[in-house]
Amino acid sequence: MIHSSAVVETDMVGSDVSVAEFAIVRAGVRIGNGVVIHPHVVIASGTVIGNGVEIFPGAFIGKEPKGAGATARQPTFRRVVHIGDHCSIGPHAVIYYDVEIGAHTLLGDGASVREQCRIGSHCLIGRYVTVNYNTTVGDRTKIMDLTHITGNGMVGNDVFISVLVGTTNDNALGQHAYSEETIVDPTIRDGAMIGVGVSMLPRVVIGERAVVGAGSVVTKDIPADTLAMGIPARPIRPVPARGASK
Amino acid sequence: MIHSSAVVETDMVGSDVSVAEFAIVRAGVRIGNGVVIHPHVVIASGTVIGNGVEIFPGAFIGKEPKGAGATARQPTFRRVVHIGDHCSIGPHAVIYYDVEIGAHTLLGDGASVREQCRIGSHCLIGRYVTVNYNTTVGDRTKIMDLTHITGNGMVGNDVFISVLVGTTNDNALGQHAYSEETIVDPTIRDGAMIGVGVSMLPRVVIGERAVVGAGSVVTKDIPADTLAMGIPARPIRPVPARGASK
Amino acid sequence: MIHSSAVVETDMVGSDVSVAEFAIVRAGVRIGNGVVIHPHVVIASGTVIGNGVEIFPGAFIGKEPKGAGATARQPTFRRVVHIGDHCSIGPHAVIYYDVEIGAHTLLGDGASVREQCRIGSHCLIGRYVTVNYNTTVGDRTKIMDLTHITGNGMVGNDVFISVLVGTTNDNALGQHAYSEETIVDPTIRDGAMIGVGVSMLPRVVIGERAVVGAGSVVTKDIPADTLAMGIPARPIRPVPARGASK
Repeated sequence: MIHSSAVVETDMVGSDVSVAEFAIVRAGVRIGNGVVIHPHVVIASGTVIGNGVEIFPGAFIGKEPKGAGATARQPTFRRVVHIGDHCSIGPHAVIYYDVEIGAHTLLGDGASVREQCRIGSHCLIGRYVTVNYNTTVGDRTKIMDLTHITGNGMVGNDVFISVLVGTTNDNALGQHAYSEETIVDPTIRDGAMIGVGVSMLPRVVIGERAVVGAGSVVTKDIPADTLAMGIPARPIRPVPARGASK
Repeated sequence: MIHSSAVVETDMVGSDVSVAEFAIVRAGVRIGNGVVIHPHVVIASGTVIGNGVEIFPGAFIGKEPKGAGATARQPTFRRVVHIGDHCSIGPHAVIYYDVEIGAHTLLGDGASVREQCRIGSHCLIGRYVTVNYNTTVGDRTKIMDLTHITGNGMVGNDVFISVLVGTTNDNALGQHAYSEETIVDPTIRDGAMIGVGVSMLPRVVIGERAVVGAGSVVTKDIPADTLAMGIPARPIRPVPARGASK
Repeated sequence: MIHSSAVVETDMVGSDVSVAEFAIVRAGVRIGNGVVIHPHVVIASGTVIGNGVEIFPGAFIGKEPKGAGATARQPTFRRVVHIGDHCSIGPHAVIYYDVEIGAHTLLGDGASVREQCRIGSHCLIGRYVTVNYNTTVGDRTKIMDLTHITGNGMVGNDVFISVLVGTTNDNALGQHAYSEETIVDPTIRDGAMIGVGVSMLPRVVIGERAVVGAGSVVTKDIPADTLAMGIPARPIRPVPARGASK
């Protein structure tokens, strides 16, 4: 089931694995059982793929971060990637080095996750979502299409982030040299829900189960169990208790 | 004109067809006359490609929707795709199974159209536009780059939707189990125009030839022939009659 | 270092060049010294690649603009692309014909630059940023993920544009036939900074070193050295002088 045109440089390949035409699996990659690798996929050395994972055409796993002299921050990373069991990695998705993804998580078409990120299990990372470096996402969290999660961030469990949401981590808008101390991402606590088109400024904290209305600009912390909205977002009323999400 | 490195498993190929290096055309695909298939394209079984279609590098036609255990909704679909005559399918575009696209429609780079969608003729679907499942788009409609059209939606003829527009179909923000009854997309009627950065809440109806100003958040229906704007969007004044769009 | 499965039709290849599996370099391409071309890259005829450039998997350089009968504007272009020394071109990035990119510039994953654009040196063009036709970007400018820069535009040196920023060039929202006179992009002058989620209407000018706050809708010119915000964006106060950006 390994096509003759595929390039498979590793022998750590489980049973019942399919590698399609023109896919490339580099030396040192470990592939679990029942994995399906579609055409034109590239998997770099140091990647570990769990059982039952499906990787769609053109996905690229194990990208080196690269500055080209244009970025202030010097990336640091280990040359490893872990993809949990039964994940689905969409066409043209890009996973950088030093990323860990839990079981049963879906990355949509072109989703891009940078170095030093940890993403939980049963998550949905939508199409063309971009996640910046050194960010943690909990379990059962959904981040919908075309949303950006910035670097050094923290997103909890059971969070829902709608489409076209922008988060930022730098009040100086990139004009200073990079420093871990001045670059602080928003924190989105467990069970919070962020509406379509919301913009979040650096350092803000969205409390547990808080809800941020569509189109809001969040400039200050939002307390737990509170509905907030507006520009700037202000607390409107308590959010009634919700059943456990599934 | 079929390159020796291409994988062409079907013999239903028209005249004057070009299939470039490392492209894959599965068994059961029908290819019209004068079709140009660029390198690294993947076309799955059940796809019908009209005459004069050009498919750019890395496009993937015939993707199975896949939940990976992370999505509430169970996708249903037929294993067919129809691409009308003279369409242009951009590099890295992704077309899921059970999609029909009319003639002379252009999909930009990375545009992604999910299962059970119907898109009309002479449409422009911009770069990285994501269209969710079971949505209908009329003829001569333009949806610009980086916009999201959500599921179970209806977009009319001669509609213009600017860049970075977000539509939603779920007031509960994903916390309930999926149900067709509670998930209702906005409806955008014929000739409506939606400005840059607009967010639209579920269930709203944009009337015929209505115009929604840049950055608005649409929370209620907008009447036909009306300019609306603001957060939330309110009717401002009638829109003067326009000549037929071309 | 040219893999046997790669298709290299040119002999204008510098020293110490690597071309990986299933990559395609067409006749007439010039490749500098020390260039790294990853798998599944496609480089069309007429492209000139500088020294030390790295091109990641699936990137496509030298795309013909193509209307498919859906666009009002007839594209014009020369069949050339220039990529400066030490650029990094991300996976699945798309560079159209008649584009020039300065040295040390980074294009993120899936960044897409249309015909007749000039981009300076030491720029960062983020993931899934789409740049429209005939637009000029200066040196040391950063355009973050998922932002759209529209056509016929001008972005200066040392500009910072945050994520999910939308610019537009057509007050008529696409309903007229295309005309260079009615289609005018925003101008963003040297040192300006644009916050997350900003929408910009056609014809507006953002002055030197002006700052536009998150979520603003810019409908009128913003003077130099001024902080503006709101919907519509209004000047709030002068911006204190900043040190030279690096």
